[in-house]
Amino acid sequence: MAGNSFGTLFRVATWGESHGPAIGCVVDGVPPRLPLAEADIQTWLDRRRPGQSRFTTQRREPDRVEILSGVFEGLTTGTPISLLIHIEDQRSKDYGELKDRFRPGHADYTYWAKYGIRDYRGGGRSSARETAMRVAAGAIARKILGAGVSIRGALVQMGVHTIDRGRWDWAAVDDNPFFCPDRQAAQMWEGYLDEVRKAGSSIGAVIEVVASGVPAGLGAPVYSKLDADIAGALMGINAAKGVEIGAGFAAAALRGEDNADEMRMKDGKVAFLSNNAGGILGGISSGQDIVARFSVKPTSSILTHRRTVDIRGNEVEVSSKGRHDPCVGIRAVPVGEAMIACVLADHLLRHRAQCG
Amino acid sequence: MAGNSFGTLFRVATWGESHGPAIGCVVDGVPPRLPLAEADIQTWLDRRRPGQSRFTTQRREPDRVEILSGVFEGLTTGTPISLLIHIEDQRSKDYGELKDRFRPGHADYTYWAKYGIRDYRGGGRSSARETAMRVAAGAIARKILGAGVSIRGALVQMGVHTIDRGRWDWAAVDDNPFFCPDRQAAQMWEGYLDEVRKAGSSIGAVIEVVASGVPAGLGAPVYSKLDADIAGALMGINAAKGVEIGAGFAAAALRGEDNADEMRMKDGKVAFLSNNAGGILGGISSGQDIVARFSVKPTSSILTHRRTVDIRGNEVEVSSKGRHDPCVGIRAVPVGEAMIACVLADHLLRHRAQCG
Amino acid sequence: MAGNSFGTLFRVATWGESHGPAIGCVVDGVPPRLPLAEADIQTWLDRRRPGQSRFTTQRREPDRVEILSGVFEGLTTGTPISLLIHIEDQRSKDYGELKDRFRPGHADYTYWAKYGIRDYRGGGRSSARETAMRVAAGAIARKILGAGVSIRGALVQMGVHTIDRGRWDWAAVDDNPFFCPDRQAAQMWEGYLDEVRKAGSSIGAVIEVVASGVPAGLGAPVYSKLDADIAGALMGINAAKGVEIGAGFAAAALRGEDNADEMRMKDGKVAFLSNNAGGILGGISSGQDIVARFSVKPTSSILTHRRTVDIRGNEVEVSSKGRHDPCVGIRAVPVGEAMIACVLADHLLRHRAQCG
Amino acid sequence: MAGNSFGTLFRVATWGESHGPAIGCVVDGVPPRLPLAEADIQTWLDRRRPGQSRFTTQRREPDRVEILSGVFEGLTTGTPISLLIHIEDQRSKDYGELKDRFRPGHADYTYWAKYGIRDYRGGGRSSARETAMRVAAGAIARKILGAGVSIRGALVQMGVHTIDRGRWDWAAVDDNPFFCPDRQAAQMWEGYLDEVRKAGSSIGAVIEVVASGVPAGLGAPVYSKLDADIAGALMGINAAKGVEIGAGFAAAALRGEDNADEMRMKDGKVAFLSNNAGGILGGISSGQDIVARFSVKPTSSILTHRRTVDIRGNEVEVSSKGRHDPCVGIRAVPVGEAMIACVLADHLLRHRAQCG
Repeated sequence: MAGNSFGTLFRVATWGESHGPAIGCVVDGVPPRLPLAEADIQTWLDRRRPGQSRFTTQRREPDRVEILSGVFEGLTTGTPISLLIHIEDQRSKDYGELKDRFRPGHADYTYWAKYGIRDYRGGGRSSARETAMRVAAGAIARKILGAGVSIRGALVQMGVHTIDRGRWDWAAVDDNPFFCPDRQAAQMWEGYLDEVRKAGSSIGAVIEVVASGVPAGLGAPVYSKLDADIAGALMGINAAKGVEIGAGFAAAALRGEDNADEMRMKDGKVAFLSNNAGGILGGISSGQDIVARFSVKPTSSILTHRRTVDIRGNEVEVSSKGRHDPCVGIRAVPVGEAMIACVLADHLLRHRAQCG
Repeated sequence: MAGNSFGTLFRVATWGESHGPAIGCVVDGVPPRLPLAEADIQTWLDRRRPGQSRFTTQRREPDRVEILSGVFEGLTTGTPISLLIHIEDQRSKDYGELKDRFRPGHADYTYWAKYGIRDYRGGGRSSARETAMRVAAGAIARKILGAGVSIRGALVQMGVHTIDRGRWDWAAVDDNPFFCPDRQAAQMWEGYLDEVRKAGSSIGAVIEVVASGVPAGLGAPVYSKLDADIAGALMGINAAKGVEIGAGFAAAALRGEDNADEMRMKDGKVAFLSNNAGGILGGISSGQDIVARFSVKPTSSILTHRRTVDIRGNEVEVSSKGRHDPCVGIRAVPVGEAMIACVLADHLLRHRAQCG
Repeated sequence: MAGNSFGTLFRVATWGESHGPAIGCVVDGVPPRLPLAEADIQTWLDRRRPGQSRFTTQRREPDRVEILSGVFEGLTTGTPISLLIHIEDQRSKDYGELKDRFRPGHADYTYWAKYGIRDYRGGGRSSARETAMRVAAGAIARKILGAGVSIRGALVQMGVHTIDRGRWDWAAVDDNPFFCPDRQAAQMWEGYLDEVRKAGSSIGAVIEVVASGVPAGLGAPVYSKLDADIAGALMGINAAKGVEIGAGFAAAALRGEDNADEMRMKDGKVAFLSNNAGGILGGISSGQDIVARFSVKPTSSILTHRRTVDIRGNEVEVSSKGRHDPCVGIRAVPVGEAMIACVLADHLLRHRAQCG
Repeated sequence: MAGNSFGTLFRVATWGESHGPAIGCVVDGVPPRLPLAEADIQTWLDRRRPGQSRFTTQRREPDRVEILSGVFEGLTTGTPISLLIHIEDQRSKDYGELKDRFRPGHADYTYWAKYGIRDYRGGGRSSARETAMRVAAGAIARKILGAGVSIRGALVQMGVHTIDRGRWDWAAVDDNPFFCPDRQAAQMWEGYLDEVRKAGSSIGAVIEVVASGVPAGLGAPVYSKLDADIAGALMGINAAKGVEIGAGFAAAALRGEDNADEMRMKDGKVAFLSNNAGGILGGISSGQDIVARFSVKPTSSILTHRRTVDIRGNEVEVSSKGRHDPCVGIRAVPVGEAMIACVLADHLLRHRAQCG
């Protein structure tokens, strides 16, 4: 398979470059007769949209999504759903040195090494702009999963600062510009990120996504395990460098008796006494909350001069100018949610196929 | 796709249960005319084989691999290579309580929830025995990658103890029963793991795999990014709970100017001044060492009694008896290497297809 | 995989309904640095466009294709190419009885049976309009195959009338409204088809496609044989009912000594003395011309009243009104060429991947 | 994907060469808790086995199938089912001229052209022996389809002789060595094929497969149409040269009013008044019988000397010796049934996934 689509039955193919006329996606395999309107998708896109606070890039991306196919009289028809967003913010500009200098930490050099050509305008295909279509596809995935499944994300670490899990409040997430579930941390982060931003620098982050209400049984061992597919989906998000499920890396330091989640019966159902597994055992959902985290590196588009080379092999320097995102991890929250929604919807259909 | 195969062009399908008559795999898409003998594969299997020290399960798995197809007069023919290992250690035994009790931390419950049936003998399909075939496939992948690419793994953390990276010595890895690159740590780990083993307990670990000599350009953005595929491949290994590339989760705490790897020219080639990226930018290999780590939880097969339920919904207790693996992370080292070899071989072929 | 994409490495996903706002496709896996402009694609679309003679539907489909991604400064970048055609001819109209009556011979009933909903406007997704995107993708496939490969189609049978192969002249194909390689037959067909058209009836056809210059070695036995993939691709064209390669069904009546194409050397190369194989042996191209034929049924949109049922289970009658296509086989010629171009491009990349 | 597997959810990977130690397959995606024993598979293999009459090759292929995984206590577990047949009839022999001469009409030359190496013993991977695994997989597919679906094949043409459809009797099929449904024709064919056999020649055939009881709604337009997948599956059978559905090539000569199958209600269900569609409309099953035919060329292994070249480019002659199959079409009957069973099982699962 070529690299711009994912999923087996719920299948998403995206296309488009940062500064092209449009970006879009084709979502195939959607069950028929689901109510779907542009507004259902726009809601989620709006959460991701940059420029909503001083902490994300000021680039204007109205991101108005259009449904071009696959929906008839308000219902999905089972045929592919084509979504498109026209790109309006294409200021004609001089890309200057970015045209032939590789920004350190960016995909500039590797796209060049792979393809021998690259669309240098705004990062081209490697731009985070593409993630809008992941969010759009995620909105459709949520429709498939139904109201019983909720998928929520939060920023649990910004730079060196982590939240206090004792103060976790999902209601707080939408009350601050960081999707932070700890109000106190969020307040502190404002000053912290302002400092980073004013210094022309940037900072990484850790995002946690929790999926509740997922039925036991999803996942296709041993190579499409639910956690393996989630790991691939999250690591494929721009700037992601790590993924963990449940106890994650901390599990390495645990002893067997502390790690394995014991089981009891509660109201006639299996109930686990802890959730180190993050809701997945043997690659199959257990019915517990699915808990995944991923780390995002600091954006490399910073105002400091950095040493690099150009396409002719000269040693040069480069720096970014203008709009920059001090913490790209913020906008990664809705993207992480969307990717998990897509993986779950795909596995729901796969499970239904094999196990009825 | 069903869940028991992986890869796009270099494609591996595995089959077999822990206590069935045999396990095996079919490796398809292998380029023709590569020299391949059973001994080339056996070498790698022997590294993974349990029972080689007191620190791994004493179960005897001779694991003699047979090539049943796809090789003619010592060369691959381009047709599928079928590998098979007969299982000799199938003592007829009474599985007793394991027949209907779900071991906490195991796949017992989720296989039951998904399929409504499970082969309870030795974990059935969810057993780590299956990973022998990953190692076997990895041996073929290495042939495709050629001698210029080396893929080496090491245990960098066992339980609460991490290695001292200043003492990293690849030569040490094969001199101790832990694949530990730090001789001093390895010595200390002996006593530590003995204590864990004698207590009937177990401990997690972190494995690091480094691939050197990988050409720049491998990876298929934006959904088959090299790091995304590696993350999926490593998270799909039994007991894995976390994956990171390069700086990984530590990247969250870095600032942009510290994270992005600067570039200079060296001997007419691009040279990076650091490797926080772990050799992958924008999902494409940069030519630097690819560095991936994954965490493995402590095995849940421990001698302590644990609370659980049975298939009829009764609250019961369960414990493992006899042979147990105090640190399954040890044997995960060759498995991690193999999975990365398979991912790289697949992307090498994919890159050759698209970019010639 | 969901059903709206095809190909392994050269991968095409199409979307859109007959009377939606647009139709389009995403072509992924295209090698980088190929020159590509909208005009390169438009040329082929224009051959397929209806309304060019009185023998095809009078529906106006200007079919102006736009490239929305994947091309930069006139060259492909290796990222997905999104193509879109706005549908201009969407007269708001009353679909009357077609809204709830199943036209015999159409997909009306089966879409309803499968999805429980259908876009009844102009056939929705099942409309031949979708084939425009196949032709567009085929234009890109031809770029990958290069100038050395030519893929040409011709109508060799219309209704009961077959051509005289002794008069085959490729130059004639573009000189008549039928893509007929036999000028004399073409002349006769004018009167014949006029009669069919005026009677409000329709007629089937057989199309032959010949690919010359295809190198030996393409095809991936034993389940992606080149002929198997061609058969699937051609049978998937709207209204197709049969496919054959080389001698095809006539091979059943041949004896072994008459069927097998003997070989000699010519100019240092293998030369075959006949081509009953149609250029494919064991599922792999032999270097000879690849010769494939497919039959197309008469369109079911005819002016005669026909017995059918409606969505409520009533026995009713139905007939088509207005514009109709007396021989849909004509427009199937460029579509057949395009599908074969896509299959060959995919196998060229697959072969390069495995065999270098 | 590599070429040795097929299916999306019901997925079959086969391996093995004609004269290797074994052949086998891995069937993945099978629903759990289906009763399955080796005898269920052996039944179908026995129908295909050669050497049962003087009209098929005298090569002894006992073809005893073993189930190596995926079945526990007589039920499928949802994990991959590995099937294996040991090859017993491997007489060590001198392959003589076949070692480096390309038999006309065989895959010898194209395998050489593609891979630069070939296992010349008995045709290697291109041997019809591989089709035993298709039949084995088909046996599992039938289990998934259940008792309500019957899939039966018959030889409807042998060489120049076709059956009289007025005498069609399914009961006759198993009463003659040809799977011929017309007893009178079968009797005549004995003498005809004896003559062909004694002349050291061979003859082609046409096979018809009918699937009854298939529910309406199977098929995934527009690129995994049921007829497209059937066409690919049948054309991929060794020696196949043509495929048709329903009226097939004859549809080209029909007029619209004669071709489209009218509909009425019968016992509260839709009933078609004819079946030119062969049970498939718009790529989706209509609930009528699915009717597919494929032609098979005469085997090229004949006793007559034929002109060819060798691997060094010399012009030479070649002929087959010993055992030969005067009409390979006979054994293609159970193979055709099996392929259609596999396609239907796959689409049943795909349909259940999307449409519930």
